[in-house]
Amino acid sequence: MHSFKDDYSELGHERVLNDLLKISRKQLAGYGLDSVSAEARELIKDCFSLGKADIHFLTGGTQTNLVLVNAALSSIDAVIAADTSHILVHECGSIEHNGNKILTARNSGGKLLPSNIETIFNEHTDEHMVRPKLVYISQLTEKGTVYTKQELKDLFGICKKLGLYFYIDGARLGNALEADSADTKPEDMGKLCDAFYIGGTKNGSPLGEALCIINENLKNGFRYYLKQHGALLAKGGLIGSCFKTLFKDGLYFELAKHANKMAQKIAKALVEKNYELSTCSPANIIFPIVQNGKIKELQQYFNFLTYEKVDEKRTVIRLVCSWATTEEDTDKLIAML
Amino acid sequence: MHSFKDDYSELGHERVLNDLLKISRKQLAGYGLDSVSAEARELIKDCFSLGKADIHFLTGGTQTNLVLVNAALSSIDAVIAADTSHILVHECGSIEHNGNKILTARNSGGKLLPSNIETIFNEHTDEHMVRPKLVYISQLTEKGTVYTKQELKDLFGICKKLGLYFYIDGARLGNALEADSADTKPEDMGKLCDAFYIGGTKNGSPLGEALCIINENLKNGFRYYLKQHGALLAKGGLIGSCFKTLFKDGLYFELAKHANKMAQKIAKALVEKNYELSTCSPANIIFPIVQNGKIKELQQYFNFLTYEKVDEKRTVIRLVCSWATTEEDTDKLIAML
Amino acid sequence: MHSFKDDYSELGHERVLNDLLKISRKQLAGYGLDSVSAEARELIKDCFSLGKADIHFLTGGTQTNLVLVNAALSSIDAVIAADTSHILVHECGSIEHNGNKILTARNSGGKLLPSNIETIFNEHTDEHMVRPKLVYISQLTEKGTVYTKQELKDLFGICKKLGLYFYIDGARLGNALEADSADTKPEDMGKLCDAFYIGGTKNGSPLGEALCIINENLKNGFRYYLKQHGALLAKGGLIGSCFKTLFKDGLYFELAKHANKMAQKIAKALVEKNYELSTCSPANIIFPIVQNGKIKELQQYFNFLTYEKVDEKRTVIRLVCSWATTEEDTDKLIAML
Amino acid sequence: MHSFKDDYSELGHERVLNDLLKISRKQLAGYGLDSVSAEARELIKDCFSLGKADIHFLTGGTQTNLVLVNAALSSIDAVIAADTSHILVHECGSIEHNGNKILTARNSGGKLLPSNIETIFNEHTDEHMVRPKLVYISQLTEKGTVYTKQELKDLFGICKKLGLYFYIDGARLGNALEADSADTKPEDMGKLCDAFYIGGTKNGSPLGEALCIINENLKNGFRYYLKQHGALLAKGGLIGSCFKTLFKDGLYFELAKHANKMAQKIAKALVEKNYELSTCSPANIIFPIVQNGKIKELQQYFNFLTYEKVDEKRTVIRLVCSWATTEEDTDKLIAML
Repeated sequence: MHSFKDDYSELGHERVLNDLLKISRKQLAGYGLDSVSAEARELIKDCFSLGKADIHFLTGGTQTNLVLVNAALSSIDAVIAADTSHILVHECGSIEHNGNKILTARNSGGKLLPSNIETIFNEHTDEHMVRPKLVYISQLTEKGTVYTKQELKDLFGICKKLGLYFYIDGARLGNALEADSADTKPEDMGKLCDAFYIGGTKNGSPLGEALCIINENLKNGFRYYLKQHGALLAKGGLIGSCFKTLFKDGLYFELAKHANKMAQKIAKALVEKNYELSTCSPANIIFPIVQNGKIKELQQYFNFLTYEKVDEKRTVIRLVCSWATTEEDTDKLIAML
Repeated sequence: MHSFKDDYSELGHERVLNDLLKISRKQLAGYGLDSVSAEARELIKDCFSLGKADIHFLTGGTQTNLVLVNAALSSIDAVIAADTSHILVHECGSIEHNGNKILTARNSGGKLLPSNIETIFNEHTDEHMVRPKLVYISQLTEKGTVYTKQELKDLFGICKKLGLYFYIDGARLGNALEADSADTKPEDMGKLCDAFYIGGTKNGSPLGEALCIINENLKNGFRYYLKQHGALLAKGGLIGSCFKTLFKDGLYFELAKHANKMAQKIAKALVEKNYELSTCSPANIIFPIVQNGKIKELQQYFNFLTYEKVDEKRTVIRLVCSWATTEEDTDKLIAML
Repeated sequence: MHSFKDDYSELGHERVLNDLLKISRKQLAGYGLDSVSAEARELIKDCFSLGKADIHFLTGGTQTNLVLVNAALSSIDAVIAADTSHILVHECGSIEHNGNKILTARNSGGKLLPSNIETIFNEHTDEHMVRPKLVYISQLTEKGTVYTKQELKDLFGICKKLGLYFYIDGARLGNALEADSADTKPEDMGKLCDAFYIGGTKNGSPLGEALCIINENLKNGFRYYLKQHGALLAKGGLIGSCFKTLFKDGLYFELAKHANKMAQKIAKALVEKNYELSTCSPANIIFPIVQNGKIKELQQYFNFLTYEKVDEKRTVIRLVCSWATTEEDTDKLIAML
Repeated sequence: MHSFKDDYSELGHERVLNDLLKISRKQLAGYGLDSVSAEARELIKDCFSLGKADIHFLTGGTQTNLVLVNAALSSIDAVIAADTSHILVHECGSIEHNGNKILTARNSGGKLLPSNIETIFNEHTDEHMVRPKLVYISQLTEKGTVYTKQELKDLFGICKKLGLYFYIDGARLGNALEADSADTKPEDMGKLCDAFYIGGTKNGSPLGEALCIINENLKNGFRYYLKQHGALLAKGGLIGSCFKTLFKDGLYFELAKHANKMAQKIAKALVEKNYELSTCSPANIIFPIVQNGKIKELQQYFNFLTYEKVDEKRTVIRLVCSWATTEEDTDKLIAML
C-alpha cells in the first residue's frame, strides 16, 4: 500500500547514503567541526549567496525551531505565528516548554500577513503582556502555498520596522523554491530574513536541516544552545555529508522538483475530474475535497491524511508526494480517483 | 595523524551503513513507529532480557539524558551525580536549563558510592532545598572504570530504599560489558536500574542511543517529552536500522571488545615501559601519566586529550580506542612511547 | 480625581492594617508556619467548609496562578482557558515561561463552556501536540459575569470525566459570591473544583491570596514550589494576619458586598439614562458603552479604562468599584453621566 | 521562649506599620507606579548616591535573586557563587528551575575570592560547558562576615575584566554597613557592583527588598520579568511605604545597628566566658561553639539553630539578633551561658 501521507517515509536518496559509506572509517572532528561539514557549508553558501552567514546542521525541524527561538528570545519575548503554524500546533509545546509564548493570527491560505504582525505588535503595550520579538513563517506553508518574493519582502520590512526577527522554517524550502509559480531564488533567501533553514529530512536526506543565520545578533553563542538542547551531534559529519551530497551537483533541487511534479500531476488530474482543491498549492502537497465514500475506497489502496471536514458528505484530504514517489504510484492513484 | 581523542571520530561500521542503503526507498512509518525500529527493539529486548521495557531511540547522549531526566523529574526534584559526571560538566547545563539542580558528591575513581547518595539525601530535609529524586551514573565511568555487578546492586538498593530513580548512562555500555574484569551481563541490566541507555554513537553507529525504560512510572507520556525536545526523529527508522544491524548478530559486542582490546594493548605496553596509569581502566579509555616533553613529541603524530596536570613535569593524558582503531594505529603509538 | 480603574488602588482596610500593628513585635515562626496563619486557615476552612484542604497564602494573583499551575502540570501538559483569561493575556507569559502552553477557546460573555473543553481535549490526540491537563476559569470573570453553581458543576463534571484538573482563579471571588444573582455559597466551593483561591488583594487586604487545594494529587510538595518561585514569604504571618482579620467576623463579605452595591448603583443609573451595557455584570465591574465625547468629559474628573471600540462614535469603558469606593464617589460619577 | 533563630520573626517596626495605616484609603497607582514608592526610591537614591539607578521593590530575597538572575542571564549563562550561598542551597533550586547552572567555589569564611572567579572562568572554555556570566555574593555573608570595601572592589574588578556581572545580595546589607569593622558606606555601593538589593524583610519591614540596578544592560525590560515571575505587586505602594519609613529619617540604619549591638554583646560575653566562635562575625549573626549538654540546656529557654557538628562533644550554633531583640532577651541568654 503506497503512502501519500507525508514526504519523510523513504529513508534517503541512494547517493546520500552511498556517500556516507565512503567515509565510514575516515576520522572526522566531532560536533560539526569536521571537514565534510565545512565543505557542505561552502556548497550551501555558494548556492544561496550566504557569504557571512553561520550555518549549523541539526537533526530535525522541531529541534531547529526550538534552538533558534531559544537562542533568539529571552523569556519575556514572544513569537508571532499563523494559527496553522507547525511550531504552534505540532511540536508538542516545545517553544512554550522553553519559556516563550506564541501569539497567533488567523492564517490567510496558510500565510501570515504584515497587517497581522502590526496588529499583534500594537496590542502588546506594557509589562502585563509579553513582548513580541520574532516572526515565524514556513515556506512552503502548512497549506502547501508559497509566499511570493514580494510577500517575503513585505514581512521582513515590517519586522525590521518593529524591531522583530524574521525567521523562515524551510522544512519544505526546496519544494517552495521549485514550485512553478515561485519567483524567489535560492540566492534571494539571505536578503529576505534574519534566519532560515533548508530542510533535508523532507527532501532526500535520512535526517538533517541546515540552519542559516544571517543576522549577527543571532550568531553569538549559538553552539552553546545547540549543545544545551542535545542538538550538537557528536558525529556532525553525518548530516554534513548528507548536505554535501544534496548540494554538490543540484540533487536537492532535482528531488524537490520531482516531488512537486508528481503532486501537480495528481492536482491536474483532480481538476480534470472535477474535484475541488481547498487551497491552490503549487508544490508537493495538495488538498483535494473528496466525497467520504470515495475516501474509504482510496484508503483501501493508499495511505493519506484526512485533513478537515467540509460538510456531512465531503472532507479535505492531504496528499503529499516525495522525492521517491514514482510515476507509477501517481498513475495508480489517478486511475482510482 | 591518527586520533586517540575519542571513540566517535569514525562515522560508522560498514554493515550499519550498508543496511541503511538497503532500505533507502522503502516506505516506513514516521517517528519511530516503523517496522525496522520494531525489529531493533525486539533484538535488544532479547539480548538484554527486557521483556516489558519501553525502548526509545534518540540521536545522542546529551539528548537522552536530558529527555529522561525531564520526563522523570518535576521542577522541585534534583539529580544526584558524581562531580566528574558528563551530565554535570559536559552537557552545557542542559539539566539545569530544563529546571533541575544537580547535587554532587566527590567521585571515587569516577564512581558514585551508596554512602554519597545517603549523605546528600539526608541533607535535604525541607522545602528550602530541592528534593533529591534521581541518581545518575555512567557505565563506563568518565574515568574508564567499571562498576561491578555488586556495586550496581548496592546503588540500586539504596535508591529503592530512599525512593529515588536509578538511571545509568550507557554511552560506553558495550565497553563496560566487554571489559575483561566485567561481571555484569547484558541480561542483568534490566534488574539493576530503573532506566539505562545503550550507546550507539560511540560503538559503530553514525548516531543513536537506545533508551530502555524499565520502571513503569517513567514510561507514561514519554513520546511527548521526546517530541517536545525535538528528539523524535521523523525518520526514526534511521536509528532503528542502525541498532538492528548492531544487535542482529552480535556486532555491538564485537566492536566494543575490539576497542577494549586495542586500549588494553596500549595499557599493557605502558606498564611494561614503566608508565604510571592514573586510574585502572579495563576498557577502551586509559589515562597514562606522561612526561610533558614526551607529550609534545606524541602530539606530532597523534591526537589525544591532556586531562589533568600531575605536577610541573607530568600530565595525565587520555587515550581512547574505538571500534575502528587498528592494530597498526596502536602499534605505531606503542612504538613511540 | 477619583479612580474607577480598578479595585486595588486603596491599600487596605483599617481593621486589617490595625491588626498588623498589634502583632508588630510578636515573634512568629517563619514561612507561613506561624500561629496567626494557622488561625486564618481555620477561619477560612470553617467559612468555606474545607475540612481537609491545604491552604497556602501567596502575595498576588499572578504568583498564585503560576505556582499552582507549575505544581500541577508537567512540561508536556497544557492549560485550557478562555481567550479573555487573565492568565493568558495579562500575566506576561508566566505560564509559558514556566513551560506550559495555554490552549484557548473563544469566551461566551467571559465564560468558558464545557463544550469548549471537550472540543480542545478531542483535538489533542497524540504526542505531536501537548496534553490538556488543567482547566482555568476565573470567578468573577474578566467581563464581570458570574458562573452559576450549575455551570461550575458542569465544568467540574467534564473535567473529572476527561481527567483534567479544574482550577478557579478567585481574584474577585468575594464579589462573585456576593453578587445579587449568585447562587453559589462559600461552602459550595470545595465541591466545585480541585483548587481555587480567595482573593485578598482586590478585597480589602494590602496583599495576599489564599490558595485552597482540595484535590490530594495537587498537595504533594507544594511548599517546595512556593519556595522555588520566591512565593514563600519569610514573614508569612503578614498575609495570615490579613486573612484572619478579613474572615474573623465577615469583613471579607461585607467589603465585597459594598463594592458590588456601588457598581450596581452606577449600572442602574446608566440603564435609567439609556446607556447600553456591553455585558450584564452583577458584581463590582461594569462595562457601559459610552459616546467618545462623553468619555473625554468623564476623563477630566475620573480615571477608568477604555476597554474596546464599538464603532467610530462609541467605546466600551470599564468601571470598577472597590471596598473603599464611597457613595459620594459614585454619586459624583452618576451626576456626570 | 525567646527565639534567636533568625531576624525575621518579628513582623515589623511600629513606625513602618503605622505609616501603612495612614495611607489606608488613599488611591495609589498600581504595580509600583505610585507616588509613595516614588518617594521611597528618591530617599534610597539620596542615601546610596544612586543617581541613575533603577530601583524595584520586591517581596523577598529569593524572589529578588531569581528575577535579577533571570533577567540578566540567557539559558547558556551561569552564576558563580560560594558553596555556602543562599542562592545555591536555600532557595529550592529557583535559579536552576529558571534555567541557569550555579558554579561553586569553596568559601573562605563565607566569602568568595577573586581567584575563585578566575579559576572557574578559565575552566569554562567551550560550548560543552556553560558560560559564566554573573557573580553572586551576599553582604553580610551566610557566615556573618563582612566583605571589606577593598574586597568588593577587587571582586568587581575581576568581574569587569572578565565580562561578568557582579551582584550583591543585601538581605542583611544594613547589618553589614553598620558592623563596627565596616569600611563601606551606603554611598559606595553603587560603585562596587552592577546591582544589589537592600534587604527590608530582615531589618524592620514586614516584607520587601529594594533592588538597585546600576548597570544599564540590566535595566531593559525588567518590569516584564517582575510581572512574569508574579513579583509585581498590585499594591506596590505597600512595599514603597515600608521603605519610605525606613529611609526617611535613618530608621533603617538605627535598626541594623541595634541588632548588631545585641549580637556583639552576646559575642563579647561568650569570649569572656571562654567560648570559641567558629567565625569572627562583626554583625548580628554569631556562631559560637557550644558543648552539646549546654545546647540542650539552652534549648529549654531559647530557640536557635544548631549549625554544624564540631566533634562528638561540641556543635556550632547560630544566634541571630534582630531590630526587635531587647537588652532583656540578650541578658537572659548571657546569664544562661
